Amino acid sequence: MLNIADTMIVGIIGATGYAGAELVRLLAGHPEITKIVPASVSFQGERIEEVYPNFQGVVSAVLLKPEAAVDKADVVFAALPTGVGEAFAKACMEQGKNFIDLSADFRFDDDEATFTAWYGKPYIYPELRQRSVYGLPELNRARIRELAVRGPLIIGSPGCYPTGASLGIYPALSLGIAASGAAIIIDAASGVTGGGREPSRSFHYPECADSLAPYKVGAHRHTPEISRNLTFMTCASSSPVIFTPHLAPMNRGILSTIYIPLAEVCRLEQRAQPRPPAKAVTERAEEIRERYAAFYEHEPFVRVLPKGGIASTGRVRLSNFCDISVHLDQTGTMLIIATAMDNMVKGAAGQAIQNMNIIYGFDERAGLTAPPASF
Amino acid sequence: MLNIADTMIVGIIGATGYAGAELVRLLAGHPEITKIVPASVSFQGERIEEVYPNFQGVVSAVLLKPEAAVDKADVVFAALPTGVGEAFAKACMEQGKNFIDLSADFRFDDDEATFTAWYGKPYIYPELRQRSVYGLPELNRARIRELAVRGPLIIGSPGCYPTGASLGIYPALSLGIAASGAAIIIDAASGVTGGGREPSRSFHYPECADSLAPYKVGAHRHTPEISRNLTFMTCASSSPVIFTPHLAPMNRGILSTIYIPLAEVCRLEQRAQPRPPAKAVTERAEEIRERYAAFYEHEPFVRVLPKGGIASTGRVRLSNFCDISVHLDQTGTMLIIATAMDNMVKGAAGQAIQNMNIIYGFDERAGLTAPPASF
Amino acid sequence: MLNIADTMIVGIIGATGYAGAELVRLLAGHPEITKIVPASVSFQGERIEEVYPNFQGVVSAVLLKPEAAVDKADVVFAALPTGVGEAFAKACMEQGKNFIDLSADFRFDDDEATFTAWYGKPYIYPELRQRSVYGLPELNRARIRELAVRGPLIIGSPGCYPTGASLGIYPALSLGIAASGAAIIIDAASGVTGGGREPSRSFHYPECADSLAPYKVGAHRHTPEISRNLTFMTCASSSPVIFTPHLAPMNRGILSTIYIPLAEVCRLEQRAQPRPPAKAVTERAEEIRERYAAFYEHEPFVRVLPKGGIASTGRVRLSNFCDISVHLDQTGTMLIIATAMDNMVKGAAGQAIQNMNIIYGFDERAGLTAPPASF
Amino acid sequence: MLNIADTMIVGIIGATGYAGAELVRLLAGHPEITKIVPASVSFQGERIEEVYPNFQGVVSAVLLKPEAAVDKADVVFAALPTGVGEAFAKACMEQGKNFIDLSADFRFDDDEATFTAWYGKPYIYPELRQRSVYGLPELNRARIRELAVRGPLIIGSPGCYPTGASLGIYPALSLGIAASGAAIIIDAASGVTGGGREPSRSFHYPECADSLAPYKVGAHRHTPEISRNLTFMTCASSSPVIFTPHLAPMNRGILSTIYIPLAEVCRLEQRAQPRPPAKAVTERAEEIRERYAAFYEHEPFVRVLPKGGIASTGRVRLSNFCDISVHLDQTGTMLIIATAMDNMVKGAAGQAIQNMNIIYGFDERAGLTAPPASF
Repeated sequence: MLNIADTMIVGIIGATGYAGAELVRLLAGHPEITKIVPASVSFQGERIEEVYPNFQGVVSAVLLKPEAAVDKADVVFAALPTGVGEAFAKACMEQGKNFIDLSADFRFDDDEATFTAWYGKPYIYPELRQRSVYGLPELNRARIRELAVRGPLIIGSPGCYPTGASLGIYPALSLGIAASGAAIIIDAASGVTGGGREPSRSFHYPECADSLAPYKVGAHRHTPEISRNLTFMTCASSSPVIFTPHLAPMNRGILSTIYIPLAEVCRLEQRAQPRPPAKAVTERAEEIRERYAAFYEHEPFVRVLPKGGIASTGRVRLSNFCDISVHLDQTGTMLIIATAMDNMVKGAAGQAIQNMNIIYGFDERAGLTAPPASF
Repeated sequence: MLNIADTMIVGIIGATGYAGAELVRLLAGHPEITKIVPASVSFQGERIEEVYPNFQGVVSAVLLKPEAAVDKADVVFAALPTGVGEAFAKACMEQGKNFIDLSADFRFDDDEATFTAWYGKPYIYPELRQRSVYGLPELNRARIRELAVRGPLIIGSPGCYPTGASLGIYPALSLGIAASGAAIIIDAASGVTGGGREPSRSFHYPECADSLAPYKVGAHRHTPEISRNLTFMTCASSSPVIFTPHLAPMNRGILSTIYIPLAEVCRLEQRAQPRPPAKAVTERAEEIRERYAAFYEHEPFVRVLPKGGIASTGRVRLSNFCDISVHLDQTGTMLIIATAMDNMVKGAAGQAIQNMNIIYGFDERAGLTAPPASF
Repeated sequence: MLNIADTMIVGIIGATGYAGAELVRLLAGHPEITKIVPASVSFQGERIEEVYPNFQGVVSAVLLKPEAAVDKADVVFAALPTGVGEAFAKACMEQGKNFIDLSADFRFDDDEATFTAWYGKPYIYPELRQRSVYGLPELNRARIRELAVRGPLIIGSPGCYPTGASLGIYPALSLGIAASGAAIIIDAASGVTGGGREPSRSFHYPECADSLAPYKVGAHRHTPEISRNLTFMTCASSSPVIFTPHLAPMNRGILSTIYIPLAEVCRLEQRAQPRPPAKAVTERAEEIRERYAAFYEHEPFVRVLPKGGIASTGRVRLSNFCDISVHLDQTGTMLIIATAMDNMVKGAAGQAIQNMNIIYGFDERAGLTAPPASF
Repeated sequence: MLNIADTMIVGIIGATGYAGAELVRLLAGHPEITKIVPASVSFQGERIEEVYPNFQGVVSAVLLKPEAAVDKADVVFAALPTGVGEAFAKACMEQGKNFIDLSADFRFDDDEATFTAWYGKPYIYPELRQRSVYGLPELNRARIRELAVRGPLIIGSPGCYPTGASLGIYPALSLGIAASGAAIIIDAASGVTGGGREPSRSFHYPECADSLAPYKVGAHRHTPEISRNLTFMTCASSSPVIFTPHLAPMNRGILSTIYIPLAEVCRLEQRAQPRPPAKAVTERAEEIRERYAAFYEHEPFVRVLPKGGIASTGRVRLSNFCDISVHLDQTGTMLIIATAMDNMVKGAAGQAIQNMNIIYGFDERAGLTAPPASF
C-alpha cells in the first residue's frame, strides 16, 4: 500500500515511554514523514519537549489523547504495555490505517493459548489477527509486503530479546548448520532502558549500577516468541529454547550469546583436557561465518562481522543494526553466535520504522541511516 | 604447618597490580598479620601509598624488589603475570616459606602439556609441582591441610572465572544431578578490573563504558582450568566445557550463568510452544536448590541463596562470598546455575588469603569478615 | 559517659534506607558492639538480610518497630527523614540513652527559625536542643565530649555536603588565610546514593547514567548548615555561602570544589592574558597546603594530601576519610580546595559512628579502620 | 566563499582520534558533502571501518597519509594534537582550500606569547594567523563570513571547555549583567572522551569509573582561551578567570557551572543565616533568564532553557546544542549559569562543521539536525 498523498502524518501512542520517545527521535529525521502526532495518557496536554527536554527546539507538539492521535494520523505506532492497545488497532483497521504495535499483543498470531499462558490475559478482539503480521523483516518481509497491498495492516513488532536471538539463529537453522532438534541456549543481557521509564527499585541507579545479574530465569515472556520464530525458521517443530536474560549496567543495548549444537562436528583428536582451537576448528568457524554473511548479504540492517570481529553493543549504539559474530568452541562441536543491537532501535523503535518503510515501499533504510555512535 | 612465632610477616610480590593492591587492602585488616612487605618490579623504591593514594594514612611501606620481600617474609603472595614467578616459588621452598601464587603457573599440577598448550611456555622448574596444590578450598581443602603440615607449600590459587564456574557446577556433578558426560556451558562476564591495571585500548573508559561484549570466544585460557576441576569433581573423565567470557561495564564482579543438562528431567506434557514453568518444575528447582544448600552448608564463603534469590555481583561486592542461585529452564530439562562473586576477592586476593588461613590453621574467615558493600 | 556494662547494644531506626544499611554494615564490624537491633517502619517484621541480601550470612536480624529498638538498645542511631525522629530522641532522653540522629532535626541547635525556613516545619520538642550537639567532630569534638559526661546526649550528625564543605573551609577561616567576609563558593557533586533508596525518576538508572547536572541551584537545604558552620569557625558573622550541588553518575562519593578568596594575594606582574602559575604561586600554594596539613595533623579521618595530590572520590571509597587537596588559581588570588569523601560513610553512617566512639570514649577509629577500596 | 562545484570533498586529518571519528560520523550524514577522505598517520593504509567497526556498512574508506587527503579535498578538517597541523594549514592556504583546525594552534590569533606560555612552543608559520579566525560562531560569525569571501581561511575551532564557558558568560558581560572586572569562576566537568583515544592510566576504566576529581587546578590550558574570549566580549580588559576542570565518569558531555558576580544585586533584608530565595530573587533570576533567551534568540544551537529548566549533559547527547540554565544564589548577589553540551559535538566536531557551514553559506544546521538522544 503505497502512500500517494502529499503528506504523511504519523501518530505515536505511548509517546512518553522510552520506546515512544525513541520513535519521536527517529521519525523527526525521517525523510518521508510530514508530521508527528504524539499521544500519551499519563502526560496528555503537556508538550513532548517538556517531558523530554532534549527535544526542545527540535520537536514541538502537544501530547494528545490516543484517540485523537489515531484520528489525525495516516499511520499509527503504539508503544503501550501489552493488553491495552487492541482498541486502537481496531480503530485503525476501521479507519483504514496501518497500525504498528510494539507490545506483545500481535506477536503470536492466532496462537492465543500461548499468548494467554505467558501474559495472563486473552485477546480482546481475536479477529484482528487476521490482519496482523509479525514484524521481523528479516524473517518475513515478503509476507509483510504481501499483506500491505491488501489493506490496512497490523504489525506485531518483535520484542527486543527475540530480535537478537532470532537473527543469530536463523542462518544456522535455515542452512542446516544446527543439529536438528537440539536445545538452543540464549544467554542475553539488556541495558536498563529495557525496563522502561517508570521508576522502580530494580532500575534505581544505586541498585543496578556496577552490578550484573540474571532475572526471570527460565520464565521470561520472550521465550515463547523466540520459540515460535524458530518453528517458523525450520518449518517444523521447534528446537527447545532455553533463554536467560540479564540486566547489565548500561543504558542501551542487548547482547545475546547463543549456543547452537552443530549438525556436523569437527573430528578432532581426543584429549583428556581441552586444547586451544585447532586449525580445523578456526577454519570451520570461518566457513560458517561466510555462510552467515552470504545469508544476510542483502539485509540492510544485519552486519555479519568480518573474520575476527566480535559483536559488541558499543558498536551499534543508536543504530538499527544487528551485528553478528560467529564462533566455535575449542572442540568444534558448538556454534557460538554473538549478536549485538541497540535494544531501543533494532529492538524497538527502529524496527517498527523499518516495518513502516516496508509497508509504504519507502527505502527500507529511510530515517535509519545515521551511523552508530562511536562512543 | 602452624605458625608458632610471635610475628607473621607477609610478602606481596606484584603488590601494585590490582590483585596485589587488593591483597594489601585485605591483609591490612587481617588479625594474624604483623606486617606487610610489598614488592614491585615496576615501582620499586616508591611507596605503596604513592602508587595507591587510597592507602595514605592506612598502609605505609616502601616497595622492595621481590627478592628482598621473599627474604623478609614468613609467607609470600605472588600476584604476577603467568610465567615469571617460579623463581620466587623456588626461593621460598628453599627458605622453607609458603608461597601463594595467583598466576596460572601452579594451577595445572603435573599436566605441563595442558599448561604449555594454553600459555605457550614450559614449566621452568617442573619439580616444584611436587610441593604445589590447587587452591580452591571448597574442592580440596583437605589436601591443602594435608600438604601444609608436611613442609613449605605452593598454592596455585585459582583463576577468577574457574572459581565461579567450579563452585556452581560442583554439587551438580558430585551429587549426580548433572547428566553424565553432557557438555556444560558457562557464560560469564567480568568487571574491568579483571583486565588488570595496565592501560590498553580494550579497557580505556570510553571503549568499554556502556557496552557489553564477549571476548576470546572458544579460546580463553581458563577453559582447561575449569575442565580440570570438573575432572576432579567427577573422579572421571570430564564433561566437555564450553566457556564464553564477556567484559561488562563495571569495576568488580564476575557473574557466571551455567547450563547443566539434568540427569533426570521433569516429564511434562509436550506442547508445540513453551509454557511458563509448571509447578513440577518449580518444585524440582527448589529440591535441587536445597541439595545445593546442604552441599555447601559448612562452607564459610559459599552462599546458596534462599528460594527466589538470584545471584547478583552487586550483592557480593568487596567480600569473599560466592553467591549461588539455582534455577531450571521452563521445561525442566536444564539446570541453570548463576554464581556471583567479587573477581578481585573470591576471584583473586580473598581466595589467596583463605588459602593462607587454611595453611596456618587460622580461622578461615580471618581478614575476610567484612560484609559485602550494599552499593 | 563511658559504657561500663559488658554489652553494648545498638539500635538503628530507619535501618533499611541507604544510610541505615551503611550503619549496619559498619557496626557489624565494630569491635565494641555486642549486638545490632535494626528497626524499620516500612519493612517491620521482615529480616534485614532479606531487604539487603548482601548481608546474608553476615548480619541476621528481624526488623523491629522503632519503639522496640529504642527499648532494647543502649544507644540509638536514627536514619530517618527530617521531622519524624524527635519522638524517638525524646524517648531516648527519658530512658537515659544517647541518640545519634542523621537527619537535620538537631543540626541547627536553638536556631529554629533557620530550620523552619528551610525545612518548612517547626521543632516538635524544642527543649531537646538543650541536650543536642552538632556532630562534626573536627569542629566541636571537645563540646561533644563535654556534654557526653553530663548525661544522655543527642547528636545532630551533619549533612553530607556540609561535612565536605566545612572541613575544606575550616583551616582557611581559622588560620586567617581567607579574606574576611568574602563570599565562599562551594561547587559540589554527589553520587546517587545521596538521593536515598526510594525509586524516583531523578534517580532512575537511564535518567542519571552517563549524565551530569546541577540541582536546587541557590536553594539547597544544606546551605544554611554550611553557613552556620562558618559562623562557628570564625566566631563572628559568617562569610556568605554560595553552594551548588550536582548529581554525578556514580554510586558513592561527594566531591566539593571550594573557592575561597585569599586574605593576602600573590603580587604578580600584570598581563593582559593569564599565564601558567608562576613559581611564587606554586610556592604559596605549598605553604598553605602545609598549614592545612598541620591544622589537621591529629585528625584521624582528615587527610590533607601531599604536594601534587588531588582529592578524588575514588580514593576514599567505603572509608571515613575526608581527603583535602590545596590549590591556588594561576593568579594566586583564589584558594581552591577540593575535598572528597564517601557520602555514605564520612557523609553519613561513618561520621555517626565516629560520634558514638567519641561519646563512649572508644578509639575514635573503632569500626572505621578498613582502608578505602582501591577500585 | 560559496562552493560552486558539483562536488564537495572533505578531508579529515587525524580521523582516527575521537574528534576525528566524530567528524566522520557527522559528515557522513551531511547533505552537502559528496565524499569524505580520512587520513591518519598512525593507521595509514588501514580502513576507517576497521579502526571504528561501528562504521562498517556505513562509511568505507582507506586512511590516507595527511598530505594525500589535503590534495584530494576541497576543505580540510584537522583533529591533531596542538603543534603538528600548521604545515597542513600552510598547504591548504597555498592550494586555496579552507582549513578547519580543532587544535589550539589557531585559537590565539597573533598573541603568540600567550600561546607559547601555555603550550610551550612557538608558532611555526606565524604569518598564517593573517588568514585565521577563532571559530566560535556565536561570538564572531560575522567575522568568519567576512573573511570567508576574501579567500581561503583557517578556522581555529574552539576548545571544548571554552565553548561551554564562553556561551554561558557572553550575555552577562555583553548586557552588563555582570559586575565589571570581578573574577568569574568556571567549575566544569568533562566526560572521559575529552581525554582522547590513547590509553593511559587516568582514563583506564577502573581508575575513573564511579569516581570524580578535579585536575590541573589553576593550570589548565583552556584558561587563557576563555580569558581571551571574555576580553573580546567586553571589548576591554578581561575579568579574571578562575577555571577548574573535573573528570566525570561518563563518556560524553561537558557541564560548566559558572559564578558571575552581579553588577546590580538584590537588596534583601539581612539575616545572620541564609534563607531560601525570596520572591525578589526568583523574579530577578527569571528576568535575567529572559534576557539570556532574547540574546540567543536567533542562535540555532544555543538553547536557553525555560523557567525551571536545569542544564544537563544528558539532554544534549550527540547534538550540537549548548543548553544554558540561569540561576541566582539565595542572596541574589551571584549569577549562576549552568551550560551543558556534548564535548565531542558542540565541543569539537559539530562546532567545526558549523564553521564549515558558515564558510560555505550552507544552512548552519546542515548535518547537525539530529535530535539529542533521550538516553
